[in-house]
Amino acid sequence: MNDSQYPWCILVPDRDNIKEIYELSDKEQWQLCHESSLLASGLMDIYKGDKMNIAALGNIVPQLHIHHIVRFQTDPAWPAPVWGMSPAQAYSEAVLQTVLQPLRKQFANSVTWSNDI
Amino acid sequence: MNDSQYPWCILVPDRDNIKEIYELSDKEQWQLCHESSLLASGLMDIYKGDKMNIAALGNIVPQLHIHHIVRFQTDPAWPAPVWGMSPAQAYSEAVLQTVLQPLRKQFANSVTWSNDI
Repeated sequence: MNDSQYPWCILVPDRDNIKEIYELSDKEQWQLCHESSLLASGLMDIYKGDKMNIAALGNIVPQLHIHHIVRFQTDPAWPAPVWGMSPAQAYSEAVLQTVLQPLRKQFANSVTWSNDI
Repeated sequence: MNDSQYPWCILVPDRDNIKEIYELSDKEQWQLCHESSLLASGLMDIYKGDKMNIAALGNIVPQLHIHHIVRFQTDPAWPAPVWGMSPAQAYSEAVLQTVLQPLRKQFANSVTWSNDI
């Protein structure tokens, strides 16, 4: 997520016409759970956050996607959830590339990256 | 969750000193994923909601717990997440017992119930 206030990644299962986790097969659900934990623990390794927030909401964008947000007791929304607290502050392209470096390294062999979201 | 504005259940893995899903063993993670989908699909069967919202936040109560909230396009917070939108409106004891009936039936053999949260 292009909001420099929080380390925030969105995991999007590569499946069409799926809105809910329970619509995936058992095997796909387990893959999602595994990849979600890989992402969450990797983000916490990098950022040393106080808490990981994970959420499948999708009220606006229905395609199944899972938010992973590293939270800090010093961040703008703490302890509330991040949504609706303050407008997103986009990264500059230069900062974005710097921010992405440790993520690309951490997940080099496990995640297909998109900068679109 | 005792908020009559939304059908809202919280799944609490029966494990001590766990804050994050990735701290569970692989087997426990899969059990959690399975039980979460059972709860989510069961709630949607009962309430015929427009969207299921699932979230592991825990910024205030750190013990791992997973929110499952049935969302409707007509509910007070739609399409925003429910947290912080409006104060909880507790069920009366009589209404709570009525509300719990279909849930107890749906999950009779799969979930240990607590009315505490």
